Amino acid sequence: MNRKAILYILGWVLNIDGAFMILPFLVSLLYQEEQGWSFLIVAAICIAAGTLLVLKKPKNMVIYEKEGFVIVAFSWILFSLFGCLPFVINGDIPDFTNALFETVSGFTTTGASILTNIEVLSHASLFWRSFSNWIGGMGVLVFLLAVMPMKGGGSQIHIMRAESPGPIVDRLVPKIKNTASILYIMYIVLTVIEFIMLVAGGMSAFEAICASFSTAGTGGFAIKNDSFMSYSPYIQWVVAVFMMLFGINFGAYFLLTIRRFKEAFRYEEARGYIFIILAATAIIAWRLIPQGMGIEETLRHSFFQVSSIITTTGFVTANFDLWPQAAKVILVLLMFIGACAGSTGGGIKVSRVMILAKTVKKEIMIYIHPNSVKKIKMEGKQVSHETLRATNVFFITYILIFVASVFLLSFEDHSLETSFTAVVATFNNIGPGLAEVGPVGNFSGFTNFSKYVMIFDMLAGRLELYPILMIFHMGMWKSAIVPPIKRRMVLRRK
Amino acid sequence: MNRKAILYILGWVLNIDGAFMILPFLVSLLYQEEQGWSFLIVAAICIAAGTLLVLKKPKNMVIYEKEGFVIVAFSWILFSLFGCLPFVINGDIPDFTNALFETVSGFTTTGASILTNIEVLSHASLFWRSFSNWIGGMGVLVFLLAVMPMKGGGSQIHIMRAESPGPIVDRLVPKIKNTASILYIMYIVLTVIEFIMLVAGGMSAFEAICASFSTAGTGGFAIKNDSFMSYSPYIQWVVAVFMMLFGINFGAYFLLTIRRFKEAFRYEEARGYIFIILAATAIIAWRLIPQGMGIEETLRHSFFQVSSIITTTGFVTANFDLWPQAAKVILVLLMFIGACAGSTGGGIKVSRVMILAKTVKKEIMIYIHPNSVKKIKMEGKQVSHETLRATNVFFITYILIFVASVFLLSFEDHSLETSFTAVVATFNNIGPGLAEVGPVGNFSGFTNFSKYVMIFDMLAGRLELYPILMIFHMGMWKSAIVPPIKRRMVLRRK
Repeated sequence: MNRKAILYILGWVLNIDGAFMILPFLVSLLYQEEQGWSFLIVAAICIAAGTLLVLKKPKNMVIYEKEGFVIVAFSWILFSLFGCLPFVINGDIPDFTNALFETVSGFTTTGASILTNIEVLSHASLFWRSFSNWIGGMGVLVFLLAVMPMKGGGSQIHIMRAESPGPIVDRLVPKIKNTASILYIMYIVLTVIEFIMLVAGGMSAFEAICASFSTAGTGGFAIKNDSFMSYSPYIQWVVAVFMMLFGINFGAYFLLTIRRFKEAFRYEEARGYIFIILAATAIIAWRLIPQGMGIEETLRHSFFQVSSIITTTGFVTANFDLWPQAAKVILVLLMFIGACAGSTGGGIKVSRVMILAKTVKKEIMIYIHPNSVKKIKMEGKQVSHETLRATNVFFITYILIFVASVFLLSFEDHSLETSFTAVVATFNNIGPGLAEVGPVGNFSGFTNFSKYVMIFDMLAGRLELYPILMIFHMGMWKSAIVPPIKRRMVLRRK
Repeated sequence: MNRKAILYILGWVLNIDGAFMILPFLVSLLYQEEQGWSFLIVAAICIAAGTLLVLKKPKNMVIYEKEGFVIVAFSWILFSLFGCLPFVINGDIPDFTNALFETVSGFTTTGASILTNIEVLSHASLFWRSFSNWIGGMGVLVFLLAVMPMKGGGSQIHIMRAESPGPIVDRLVPKIKNTASILYIMYIVLTVIEFIMLVAGGMSAFEAICASFSTAGTGGFAIKNDSFMSYSPYIQWVVAVFMMLFGINFGAYFLLTIRRFKEAFRYEEARGYIFIILAATAIIAWRLIPQGMGIEETLRHSFFQVSSIITTTGFVTANFDLWPQAAKVILVLLMFIGACAGSTGGGIKVSRVMILAKTVKKEIMIYIHPNSVKKIKMEGKQVSHETLRATNVFFITYILIFVASVFLLSFEDHSLETSFTAVVATFNNIGPGLAEVGPVGNFSGFTNFSKYVMIFDMLAGRLELYPILMIFHMGMWKSAIVPPIKRRMVLRRK
């Protein structure tokens, strides 16, 4: 384990965290709020600690998969730990566990909140919540890769792979640094377009910035207590469409920008994703007909909720907890499916679900035609044995963590629906669930123990399980800590 | 596809079905009930149809995996279709869909009932319900293999494999016919012991027969409306212990009878199974302390419910729907886990869950020590790649069917808890779920459409998915029907 390289990169992560925190401080200056100082204080601490770690660049910067996982896991934990401090200091969220829950929920783009009244928060804190959605969406390490000069693409790909969602991580261009830059540029451009369209619809600049950040990261932190219920139909449509757009593999947008349109529209996963959205919207709209809204309103609410849930954003325009059972079940299913790989969305991912479905189909074919050799294809290419195995194991690990979490939450006597959907909503980085944690509810009713379970779920969900699972494994710590100590002891004896 | 051999074996299945139906007719003679005649009439029809099919034994009796699946799937469907007719004819369950649901529920050892008042049924019908649990537990084709002279063990193993639950099917002795006989002999002996112990506890002979049948098959059809709530503690303990015993791999009992004790107690799956039972009983008992029952009563109800649910029997001594949330979640988890492979219990099976858990553990190890080659072991032997793959795919198929079923049921506006646990309870062949389908509820409140979904689930669950899935695949029908027709057309043209 290359500990020096790990600490060096973590140092840069802290520096970036500090730099980011200056933004909410600037916001507070604009609105003449006292709460902004807390951000500047924590920023100073971050940069001080970070600078210490990056003073000496280690000669050996070669890292492997294992180091990639460790870097990503600890980056996200550090980011969350420092990121929650301003809330505690400025009193917007005085309780540490609650502040940590809210911050992890932000960075992991979950959007689940323990706040019962969002609107009383300072502008700085509101900005930081939404901005955390935006950073977490594309990933802090992808940002680091984009801005930090680092040799050896072989090392960088391990960091990129560990942080990016989906079964396969494409390089858009041969160099990782350029891939990361292109991703962030497209991300920024799309965010800006949404911002302009929202302002054009009459939203205030501050609200539009926050809404765009949270949409882009598919995070779902709203700045109003009723999320998007009270905004105009135009705003709701714009946000719904952009949520859907941010759920598509960014590779497709890259192909569009370099004018390879045919390939861009041939993405099998994206087509599956859009088909699911249309089908789900249609069925839900059909079940909502008895509610007697107009056609536009029915379609708008159906599409908004479907788009919000499948992309794991979590904004709402209607209290779907009161919708017919079939509509609710569809939404819960969408929570599991999630968005496309390579997007900012969470969940199992459409491509994984498609690979799983193809695996089952192949299995049945084998029973019928035992001698047929059929390979599973995805995006026109044969899916490698390794990817298939990884997808299967991912799914199984996913289910086991899911079940264990529901079990742990059940020791509080909430209804099964609450415990179940609380885990669905946090593990898939969505935000709202059903019943007590429904669109008009929140996560404040849980004990600290349950909150830590869900903090784990949010991180595990965002980082696709393994990086976070690894830090719970003793073997990892042994290989990181024990060997150096042993070595030292041997040296002393001599 | 060897259609002649398939029809021949299905003929024998019908004959056996007819022969079995004579038993409830005899019961009706004893109690001088009119309802018994319906069983004799249907028995005659079965035997007439069966005899026609077995008149000429085909020369080629060689069958493969595909034929094994088709035979098993159609045997169970025929058995259920004919088995439900007596209920319709004698008026005990006049509605066909309800009668089919009840019969499938019986044969698949589910024990879910659409009856609101069980106690008004005739003795013949009650006997047939419990007897169907018993036949379905060990399997009708295993019975056929035990009694029918049939050459070629290579063919028989495909039938045995398709009907027996679990990832790996052991032959206890080299000959399949003998393995099947030994299984049934042990099954009968254990059933008789339970019967004697129940009669010794003051149960009437008829009740004891029915209770023993349903326990042995881990079926769960009770003959009282309150299941086992009103029986004495002694009866409850006996039934609880026997449920647990019938959930253990019958291979273990075989090793005991041939005095290989060490091997018998070394079964990894059985030890995992007993560990889960003890742990679940302990946690539930702990959560039940506030209810203020005595120690014996608390332990008895905890153990009875755990034993009943993990073995997928479905008897109850307490309305666990009113228990604390953690107790309910544990029971729902046990519903999924199920009993040991090679027992009469349903569910995913303890061995599959253990293999899945080991797969996940191995995956994490690979990330930490990329060069370590660790093989997954079960029962001291290395698990073959093929078994691992099959286990993974089984699990994925299982989840997909499960999700699709909950989705289909959700179009009725029952609570999510009802739809969800109705599928859990039928797909895993348990019986009671929670809420509307809880221990004091029943399945009569669903539409026919939902009942057919659950009939599919019960059959798919009992036959471990693939045999039943196959008959829904067009390719299978094409290869069975189209080629002969084409051949005939070609002949005519000549």
